[in-house]
Amino acid sequence: MTQTNSTTVKNQPVIGITMGDPAGIGPEIIVKALSDPNIRKAAKYIIFGMHEQLCYAADRAEIEPFWGRLPHEKITRDMRTKVVLAEYDEFSLPSWINEPTAVSGQASYAFCNDAIYAAQAGLIDGIVTAPINKTSWHLAQVKWPGHTELFASKCKSPRKAMMFVSGPLKIALATIHEALFDVRHKFTIGCVHEPIDLLNTALKEYFGYDTPKIGVAGLNPHAGENGQFGDEEQRIISPAILLAQEQGIDCSGPYSADTLFLRAIRGEFDAIVAMYHDQGMIPIKLVAPDNAVNVTIGIPIIRTSPAHGTAFDIAGKNRANPDSLKSAIRTSINMANTQKNNLIRTQA
Amino acid sequence: MTQTNSTTVKNQPVIGITMGDPAGIGPEIIVKALSDPNIRKAAKYIIFGMHEQLCYAADRAEIEPFWGRLPHEKITRDMRTKVVLAEYDEFSLPSWINEPTAVSGQASYAFCNDAIYAAQAGLIDGIVTAPINKTSWHLAQVKWPGHTELFASKCKSPRKAMMFVSGPLKIALATIHEALFDVRHKFTIGCVHEPIDLLNTALKEYFGYDTPKIGVAGLNPHAGENGQFGDEEQRIISPAILLAQEQGIDCSGPYSADTLFLRAIRGEFDAIVAMYHDQGMIPIKLVAPDNAVNVTIGIPIIRTSPAHGTAFDIAGKNRANPDSLKSAIRTSINMANTQKNNLIRTQA
Repeated sequence: MTQTNSTTVKNQPVIGITMGDPAGIGPEIIVKALSDPNIRKAAKYIIFGMHEQLCYAADRAEIEPFWGRLPHEKITRDMRTKVVLAEYDEFSLPSWINEPTAVSGQASYAFCNDAIYAAQAGLIDGIVTAPINKTSWHLAQVKWPGHTELFASKCKSPRKAMMFVSGPLKIALATIHEALFDVRHKFTIGCVHEPIDLLNTALKEYFGYDTPKIGVAGLNPHAGENGQFGDEEQRIISPAILLAQEQGIDCSGPYSADTLFLRAIRGEFDAIVAMYHDQGMIPIKLVAPDNAVNVTIGIPIIRTSPAHGTAFDIAGKNRANPDSLKSAIRTSINMANTQKNNLIRTQA
Repeated sequence: MTQTNSTTVKNQPVIGITMGDPAGIGPEIIVKALSDPNIRKAAKYIIFGMHEQLCYAADRAEIEPFWGRLPHEKITRDMRTKVVLAEYDEFSLPSWINEPTAVSGQASYAFCNDAIYAAQAGLIDGIVTAPINKTSWHLAQVKWPGHTELFASKCKSPRKAMMFVSGPLKIALATIHEALFDVRHKFTIGCVHEPIDLLNTALKEYFGYDTPKIGVAGLNPHAGENGQFGDEEQRIISPAILLAQEQGIDCSGPYSADTLFLRAIRGEFDAIVAMYHDQGMIPIKLVAPDNAVNVTIGIPIIRTSPAHGTAFDIAGKNRANPDSLKSAIRTSINMANTQKNNLIRTQA
C-alpha cells in the first residue's frame, strides 16, 4: 500500500501531445493547458498537430503563441525550446469547420501514429491524446475504432485495459463499450482477471505503489448477497480474484459496488476493478468531474487522455475547459517520473 | 421546478418509529437520534418497540431515558409526552443476542404491522422504520421478504417503487434486487414508466415541487450511443418517457448515466429515475454516505428508513452512527408537513 513520492528527476520528461481532431476542441485545450506556467515548468512538450489551428485557438483565447515549430519528421529528443510544434503542413482545414471530416480523420490519425513511433524510438516519454472523433476516423478509412485499439495494435499488446484516474479514485474496467445485457456473453474469468493483473502492474510501474491493494466490485446488487441475486460472483469473479492472489497480487472482493468506491476514497483500497462501464464511470465522473483522466494500461508506453470527447458543439468558441487535459498531462508526467525513478532504484 | 418551502405547521406531526430487529442497532440509533434536541423539537414520536432494549442502548450511550411508556394497544394521537414508547412486553430477548432469531423476527414484524395500522387510523403521520433482518422474518415465518413488500401489501398498493434521497440527489429505481443479467427478462416499458409516474406524484405531494423535472437514465454505456450498444433506449426507455410526457409529466432522457447524476446535483433535474440497483445506489451512497434515506413511494402512507441494515457486527457496542436514521426522521417530518400544507392550499 506504500506509495513512493515521485521526486523530481534531473532530466525533465518530454511529453508528446497529439492534437486530436483539429475540428474539435483539441487545439484550444492544448493552447490553454500549455499556457499554464505550472504545466510548462514540469516537462518539455512536443505537440503533434497543425499550426493554423493552434494559432486560431490562441488568438481567440488571447494567448501569445509560445511554441517553436519544426516539420514533424525532424523532431529530436534534445530541443532547446520548451514547447515544439511537430508540424503537419500536408493537412489543411478551414477554422470554421466543426464536424467530422475525412481530412481531420487522416490528420488526427497521423498525429497519433507518429507520436507512437516517437515514443517507441525514445524521443518522448509519454503521450497525451486530445480527443479524436470516431466518425472522422471512419471517413478517413482508419481501421481502428479508437485510440485504445490503435495503441494496443501498434504496441503489439493484445492484453490492455482502460483505467481512469479521478481525484482519489483509480479504476480499471473489465468490460467497456458494449450493451449491458450483452456483457453476459463475454463475462469470463479471464475478462475479470486481466484488468486486475494489468492494474496491479501499472500501479507498481507508473504510480509508485509497492504492493497496491485492489478491491474488486461485484456484478450484481450487493455483490449477489451470497448467490441470492445472480451467481457470477461465485462462478467468475471469485475465481479471477483467487487466480490473481495466487500470482501474489493483493486483491480482494467481490464487494458490493454501492459502497466500494467510498471505501477506496477513505483509503481502504488503492484502486478498484469495476465490472462494466457505468459501474466505474459513474463514480469517476461524480468524484472529480473536470479532472478525470483515461489511462491505457497493458501497453509498454505511457498514454493518457482527458475523459471527454471532441465537443464539436463548442469547438472554435473559446469556451472549452482545459482542466481534464491538464490532469492528463500531469498524470503522464508523474507516470514518466515514477517509471524513471523505479528504473534508477532497480539499477542502484 | 419551483419547490414550495414546507413552512412549520401549528400542529406538529406525530412520527411513528419502529425499532426494527431488536437484536440489531435499531434500539441504539433510535435512542441516539431522539436524544438530539433538534430532532425532538420538530415532531412528536411514538416508538414501536421493547423497553429493555431501549434502556440497554441508553445506558451504554449514557443517555437518560426520555420516553414515556404505554402498552402498544393503548396509544392515541393526543399524548402529552413528546416521546412515547408503544411497548410490547409479550416479547423478550436477552440484550447479548446479536443475530437473527425467530423472536426478533416476530417482534419487528409486529412493530411494523401496528405502525401501519396506526398510520391508517390517523394516529401517526409518518413511519420511520429502523432496519429489520430478512432471516429473522424468515425464521418467524413472516411471508413478506421485507418492509417494502409488507407496506405495499397492507396498503393494497400494487404499484410501488423505491426512492432514495441523499444530499442533493433524489432517485427512484426501475428495478431493484435482481441479478443484473436477469433484469433483461422484466425490463419493459411499464417497468420504466411506473417509477417515473410514482416519483412525479411523490415529488409533488411530499416534496413541494409543483412541476418536478425528472431525468431518466439510459441502460447502456453512453445511453447506447444512438443504438450502437444496445437498443433498450429506443425500444423501452424512450416509449416509457413519451408515455409519461403524454400524461403531462416533465421528464426527459434517456441520458448517459455517467454524467446524469452530476447534472442533477448541479440543478438541471429535480430527480432521476435509474434503471437498476447499482446505477442508482452508487451515486446515492457516494454523495452523502451517512445521510441516505430510503422512501417507499406509491403507497398512501409516508414511510422512510435509513439506507443501512441491522449491522449485527456492531450491535450492542454503542458504535452505531444515528445520522442516516436522523435523516430518515427529518425526511418523514418534511414529507408530513408538505402533505399537510398541500392539503391546506387545496382547501383554501
